[in-house]
Amino acid sequence: MGTSDQIRESCFYQEWMNLQEEELTELNRAISLNANGGASDAELTRLIEKIMDHFQDYVQRRNLMARADVSPYFAPTWCTSLERSVLWIGGCRPSSFVRLIYALCGAEIESHLSEFLRGVRIGHLGELSGRQIYMVDELQSKTIREERKLCTRLAGLQENVLDHPLASIAVTTMGRSCQVSDNLEDALDKHGRAMAEILGEADQLRLNTLREVIGILTPRQAVEFLAAGKKLRLCMQDWGKKRDLDHGRNSGN
Amino acid sequence: MGTSDQIRESCFYQEWMNLQEEELTELNRAISLNANGGASDAELTRLIEKIMDHFQDYVQRRNLMARADVSPYFAPTWCTSLERSVLWIGGCRPSSFVRLIYALCGAEIESHLSEFLRGVRIGHLGELSGRQIYMVDELQSKTIREERKLCTRLAGLQENVLDHPLASIAVTTMGRSCQVSDNLEDALDKHGRAMAEILGEADQLRLNTLREVIGILTPRQAVEFLAAGKKLRLCMQDWGKKRDLDHGRNSGN
Repeated sequence: MGTSDQIRESCFYQEWMNLQEEELTELNRAISLNANGGASDAELTRLIEKIMDHFQDYVQRRNLMARADVSPYFAPTWCTSLERSVLWIGGCRPSSFVRLIYALCGAEIESHLSEFLRGVRIGHLGELSGRQIYMVDELQSKTIREERKLCTRLAGLQENVLDHPLASIAVTTMGRSCQVSDNLEDALDKHGRAMAEILGEADQLRLNTLREVIGILTPRQAVEFLAAGKKLRLCMQDWGKKRDLDHGRNSGN
Repeated sequence: MGTSDQIRESCFYQEWMNLQEEELTELNRAISLNANGGASDAELTRLIEKIMDHFQDYVQRRNLMARADVSPYFAPTWCTSLERSVLWIGGCRPSSFVRLIYALCGAEIESHLSEFLRGVRIGHLGELSGRQIYMVDELQSKTIREERKLCTRLAGLQENVLDHPLASIAVTTMGRSCQVSDNLEDALDKHGRAMAEILGEADQLRLNTLREVIGILTPRQAVEFLAAGKKLRLCMQDWGKKRDLDHGRNSGN
């Protein structure tokens, strides 16, 4: 494989985080414009579609890279400790997209109190209709069911790694030496392919869940939701870097 | 916290892996002696107890360290990518101890064929009684139930991290800046303490499960089981280092 894998993975991630910064700037600009009546629903929808295309492209490229070697994606060294501690199969929990809507509704409702006092309204996520709330609830149940299925499959895979031929290779070779045979390499490669497949399915579930969330929201709500999600993602990285620094650790690149 | 956390964590782990090497040597010596009639059951039992005491001590010390900052334990940078990819709440799955017995029984049964041809018998793990197999099966079901409970609690915690006040802090501050307030630090500390608690319970489940496995096995079976487990653990590290090297990655320290 050569010495370029680690650099490529880390750069790929850094590019993705930079893109998140750019998208957040675009989203914030659109939100401001929209508040002043300067951005139509069609324009907002184009921005949302562009962002979703980026996400799909990221998932596809990551999938190709993970097929070559999946193991770093389950606990990436390029993230901070804080980010790694909330990781679920190489990324955020798909249900966290839905959870964020609930959190934002709460935040919106709270902040409306002070906004009303100032006579200004900025958010639209506190204005979910009964029908939207019903659809969000349905999506949350479905997503959690899908997460559990993937979790169970991952558990099976992690347990299988102990089975033949790994256990017998480790045990039947004498003394301390850990023989590396074709048999072992095949077993580890096969395990890696199965793990890459699960990662791919988790990424697909993240993508599909986000698509469904966007489908439930109006364009104005969706840009606010995407901006909040990206802001939170970038903040987690910032907070993680600060905490790693406080604890004398090297953060992700 | 100062700059010593990362070094302390990495050294603590390295010491633990060195101890695994030493214990494996002692176990292999005991197995050889026992095969020649030179080690009594009482001597084997003393060795097993010493090893279990080491494990308990490790769990206690790790728990104290994780209370200061838990996040690195969920995806330790001091492990190889391969080791991280099979990690479950900061360590091996507790059920993997039981799974290893099943794998070893199979391996023993297979290797007996060739041993019979040579007229030699070395293993005792292929000779589990019906009563022992029943107890192992019972333990496996119980352990998987306990694992699922911890998994569900971890999922809840990972989801909660998105709730107040994190989401509202990320969203209500304007622009890109990720404000670090006392409120945020409190929320992250509280989340960390809850994660440390789950890690402690997972460690305790690993310890209890291993104790129960040892309790089911005879001393001769137990030393073979422990030797196989430690050998497999050390081999995973060796194989992981080799694979990280092949992919041009820096392995754990």
